Amino acid sequence: MTPARWPHRLLSLVVFLGAVSTFSQAQSSTPEPLPIMPLPASVTPGQGEFIVDGQFRMAFDGFTEPRLFRARERFLATLFSETGIPFVREVALGTSVEGTASDGAAHFQIHTAGPSAVIQQLGEDESYRLAISPDGVRLTAANPLGVMHGMQTFLQLVRITPHGFTVPALTIDDKPRFPWRGLMIDSGRHFTSIPVIERNLDAMEAVKMNVFHWHLSEDQGVRVESKVFPLLQQKGSDGLYYTQEQIRHVIEYARDRGIRVVPEFDMPAHATAWFVGYPQLASGKGPYQIERKWGIFDPAMDPTRESTYQFLNLFIGEMAGLFPDAYFHIGGDECNGKEWDANPQIQEFKRTHNLKDNAALQAWFSGRVQKIVVSHHKIAEGWDEVLQPDTPKNVVIQSWRGRDSLLDAAKRGYRGLLSHGYYIDLNQPAEEHYLVDPLEGIADKLTPEQTASILGGEATMWAEYVNDENIDSRIWPRTAAIAERFWSPQQVRDVDSMYSRLAVISEKLKSYGIENEAASERMLERMSGDPNPEALRVLASVVAPPRGYAREELREYTSFTPLNRLVDAIPPESNAARVFRDICKRIVAGNATSQDWQTAHDWLVLWRDNDAKLEPLLAKSDITEELIPVSQSLRYVAEIGLHALDSLHSGQASTMEAQKQDLATLTNAEKPQAVLLLMVAPSVELLVKSVKVQ
Amino acid sequence: MTPARWPHRLLSLVVFLGAVSTFSQAQSSTPEPLPIMPLPASVTPGQGEFIVDGQFRMAFDGFTEPRLFRARERFLATLFSETGIPFVREVALGTSVEGTASDGAAHFQIHTAGPSAVIQQLGEDESYRLAISPDGVRLTAANPLGVMHGMQTFLQLVRITPHGFTVPALTIDDKPRFPWRGLMIDSGRHFTSIPVIERNLDAMEAVKMNVFHWHLSEDQGVRVESKVFPLLQQKGSDGLYYTQEQIRHVIEYARDRGIRVVPEFDMPAHATAWFVGYPQLASGKGPYQIERKWGIFDPAMDPTRESTYQFLNLFIGEMAGLFPDAYFHIGGDECNGKEWDANPQIQEFKRTHNLKDNAALQAWFSGRVQKIVVSHHKIAEGWDEVLQPDTPKNVVIQSWRGRDSLLDAAKRGYRGLLSHGYYIDLNQPAEEHYLVDPLEGIADKLTPEQTASILGGEATMWAEYVNDENIDSRIWPRTAAIAERFWSPQQVRDVDSMYSRLAVISEKLKSYGIENEAASERMLERMSGDPNPEALRVLASVVAPPRGYAREELREYTSFTPLNRLVDAIPPESNAARVFRDICKRIVAGNATSQDWQTAHDWLVLWRDNDAKLEPLLAKSDITEELIPVSQSLRYVAEIGLHALDSLHSGQASTMEAQKQDLATLTNAEKPQAVLLLMVAPSVELLVKSVKVQ
Repeated sequence: MTPARWPHRLLSLVVFLGAVSTFSQAQSSTPEPLPIMPLPASVTPGQGEFIVDGQFRMAFDGFTEPRLFRARERFLATLFSETGIPFVREVALGTSVEGTASDGAAHFQIHTAGPSAVIQQLGEDESYRLAISPDGVRLTAANPLGVMHGMQTFLQLVRITPHGFTVPALTIDDKPRFPWRGLMIDSGRHFTSIPVIERNLDAMEAVKMNVFHWHLSEDQGVRVESKVFPLLQQKGSDGLYYTQEQIRHVIEYARDRGIRVVPEFDMPAHATAWFVGYPQLASGKGPYQIERKWGIFDPAMDPTRESTYQFLNLFIGEMAGLFPDAYFHIGGDECNGKEWDANPQIQEFKRTHNLKDNAALQAWFSGRVQKIVVSHHKIAEGWDEVLQPDTPKNVVIQSWRGRDSLLDAAKRGYRGLLSHGYYIDLNQPAEEHYLVDPLEGIADKLTPEQTASILGGEATMWAEYVNDENIDSRIWPRTAAIAERFWSPQQVRDVDSMYSRLAVISEKLKSYGIENEAASERMLERMSGDPNPEALRVLASVVAPPRGYAREELREYTSFTPLNRLVDAIPPESNAARVFRDICKRIVAGNATSQDWQTAHDWLVLWRDNDAKLEPLLAKSDITEELIPVSQSLRYVAEIGLHALDSLHSGQASTMEAQKQDLATLTNAEKPQAVLLLMVAPSVELLVKSVKVQ
Repeated sequence: MTPARWPHRLLSLVVFLGAVSTFSQAQSSTPEPLPIMPLPASVTPGQGEFIVDGQFRMAFDGFTEPRLFRARERFLATLFSETGIPFVREVALGTSVEGTASDGAAHFQIHTAGPSAVIQQLGEDESYRLAISPDGVRLTAANPLGVMHGMQTFLQLVRITPHGFTVPALTIDDKPRFPWRGLMIDSGRHFTSIPVIERNLDAMEAVKMNVFHWHLSEDQGVRVESKVFPLLQQKGSDGLYYTQEQIRHVIEYARDRGIRVVPEFDMPAHATAWFVGYPQLASGKGPYQIERKWGIFDPAMDPTRESTYQFLNLFIGEMAGLFPDAYFHIGGDECNGKEWDANPQIQEFKRTHNLKDNAALQAWFSGRVQKIVVSHHKIAEGWDEVLQPDTPKNVVIQSWRGRDSLLDAAKRGYRGLLSHGYYIDLNQPAEEHYLVDPLEGIADKLTPEQTASILGGEATMWAEYVNDENIDSRIWPRTAAIAERFWSPQQVRDVDSMYSRLAVISEKLKSYGIENEAASERMLERMSGDPNPEALRVLASVVAPPRGYAREELREYTSFTPLNRLVDAIPPESNAARVFRDICKRIVAGNATSQDWQTAHDWLVLWRDNDAKLEPLLAKSDITEELIPVSQSLRYVAEIGLHALDSLHSGQASTMEAQKQDLATLTNAEKPQAVLLLMVAPSVELLVKSVKVQ
């Protein structure tokens, strides 16, 4: 193997080829995983393949509706993007839908038994059957939701072969494991523009997610136009909000993709931006400004005044009319109670109402708000904190604090969703999210009915450190692994298979407009001022943002801080470091191949020699200057790694002193620098520690 | 220099660095070219630089209008894309424009003297002055058109430095050389979707082009919704047409960018698609089908029937209401007259009206149509062919056949535009288009008044072989060189400087959504099924599509033919081959540097060794199989080149026989294969021919 000059690309190749070899086996009679994510409930392999060419025609029978024809247009557009083949539409775009029903000559025949609900409901039938033979494709489903899922499965199967673009013959019977498979986007902290929302809905459709949870208000902004209380957006959004027309557009766009839109208006805390225009809602004296920092802040709604509930009744009424979904999220997290403690009238209220602490006061508030929500014909949903002794039984609990609270809720008869473990803002590897199961360690403690009350889960994209530019790389492709957790059978949990297929879906998502890789590349070019920042790419491929909440400890950030540095450009997970770690593990376990040894060597040489090329480039830009020590660290780590590799290969021993010194250097290299972690250092430590010491 | 593993990227680096070194000189006192395209009329360097940071504020004084505030939003979005810095808007988006006028604290102060015309006019003042000092920026212009041009100039100057993102201090006084600087897009042969039109208008704004000539009807499709004659789009477009609402949107979008929209409805020929719904318009018997092939076809409107003019009067009336521009293009090209010759009534009409030939008959038709156009308060425009003895003097002649016809038109008192030489569908290098000047060899034969009647020119993107996917790579970046020809002073014609700056603008255009490189990369991945088709990129970097109209001789194409092969994915010009050719020229001229020798050697080695890596990949896909002999040719050519290089370096002679054999191999390699030309073969031929022969 020659030295890898482009490790991140090379790595995607390594991962991809692994995936492809798996899939070629899949074409034999053994039911190996197909390049589909999420994996279907059941696959029966067939013989041969179906060829996608310019003759390809689709037709519907059974129930039809305009949404299905739009789904076909979208399908054909994606299929064009996957093949470059122009497909003939049976019918003029945007005109009547006549002539679109059954057509004997069609190669892709779709049968829809009946309609789905006018307003998409939790728990609707989403199953489908996709039967592909060399002669044609037949997709059948109870309603358009299943049809749309089956179309996505088909699109994922398209590949180029010596016979053209083809799909393997097989029969898939598929349905979701959980009825609530969500992605939350926090448009409060950083505004998310409509095209970004749209392409993320497209990607959600691709991986069969069905709930877009839209976090629409925060200390940093109220993002929805209210006609009843216009000062919310006029004073609380910096002009960055969605008009009601845009909201309606997004809801329609989502419905077209089988996705429900659940709005969240966080209260009583995380609401500073409301108070800029309406200080009378707050528990403090004011005046209030839009919050520019990140964290937990004191401002909270005043739960003791009737005017608060009058306001909320009007506001929730307006929003309940805007958002058709049956569920309405009222937040409820992280109220620190400081404004309440500082307000004598609120203290007095607690005493007169026998509310022993702020949790009880918040429960009192939540109870009132839940009644308002119900009065507007919605089901309330909230974060863990809303679960209190008197919480009405129909409130859905979204657990961000852990599975224990989910278990607790289910036992007490509440329906729940898991988000703990799916916090995609925390820069965890896909593997960790993937292995979190909403029912693991819970199911055997519950009755079947209680188990069924766990509806699924949601990946949560909190937006302190994401904006329009890098949000795709934070959500995708990792969220596809979470989507598989929510859709596929519980026993689907092979991590290697997941990573193989994740690499494929990451490529496919380009056809849906997702810019995870492209945006990263543009940002590297921009920060370096170099149209081909090769050495910077090498460094970028082996670093990752700090995990969890470490980032805010390392540097001060506000909503004005540019997110244009290396930490913002790189994906949350270093594929290079992951593959290198696996190689190092095999080396120290004594089961490495000669290819493993060669790859480890080549990469370490690449990393060692990179600093000399990179340093002059880094000095040219005030954004990259801070990377100089990181690049040096990589060199030191690689030098140590090469030495350890040689020792391991030759069986030569090291001295205690040398090992100690190396480990000290590595410990240092493992500390964050420039808000970055050097992800290959721990693997080199593994090598060093397994060298014999004299 | 190490072997270049990524030649096309490396080359863009080479070109880019050349550009950058030019610009660093520009910061000294000598007025070297800045990285701006088109180059301004006058630049006075200043001292120091202006820093763009989060404090950056813009304000207007003088005349203001909503279009200016939208231009600022666009400016700030592009500046964000260039820097990653979030800029604070003074005013809420989408709300009132209060508070946007003069603001003492602004760093970028814009003074607009007055409005521009409500409907943008030919020849309006487009000048501006941009004065940049370390303390601030002042942009002044007569009207919003100049302001928008000045904003684009500023955006092109932004670069990263050790002090952050900065712009050099300088003063620019700028104005265009020609008032008509157009890009024509043929949406007739392949439909162009609205987002593609939008991003191309964005790019036109970036290079200060001001006319979007929209070719809207062809044998293959009528692309505009007519409410008066709905069968035009219902039967003549395959459902691929623009609604009137979309047309109005594009016109507004263009006006916002200082761009006029001139529609073209080609007649009497290139109109088969009209006749599918309205066969009575045609000169033949019908019935007619949408044409699927490319070329010149027989169907033509019947110029002898009054009903034709009644139809055209209603249609042109409807379109004249839809398109506000003063100019209205009626095509007029390539009528072969065969349907006329075959129709006895038309023959009879010619006799009774004393029309001696079909040219005279077409002139008769054009005269009638021109009157209709005038009756709807528009000025007619047409291709060369409409210039006949009786053509009214206010018709504008667009010359596609050559400068002679432009000269002829000007002498006879007509206003004219040059498109001959700017046919960007013909796969010529940017240099050739760049060096075509509308006035070269013409100006001295004309009076100043006649010279002024030459309004400018238009790049023409005919669409036989382009679709939404590859159109960006055919238009950009080459059209930026043409835009410079139309805008900059006549003496600006240094080809090296042009290529340097073209590389920079090509990078900048990514911020405007232009996908020339990204689309090409995606297409290579798709045709190979490989997420990192490294060896295919090497081959792609040294081939080009055949020039001129050769492509249609090499393979049969219809509008259903997928444009998903290598010829469709690559840019029209091989940068690698161009740079290699320049190196080879220096080598044979005896003025090559040692770096030149090394680069030539390394590239030839890369090309020679590429085939072994590429061949297994090519065999896996039915789209790339045909490239196997092309890749082999590259290997043979590189082997010959290496041998010749060695001989030239050592002064060793070759034998007549060996040279003859090599030249025969090269001649063979220069023939098109898989509809591709191997662009490095002629340069190797140059090397071989300059080796001494014994």
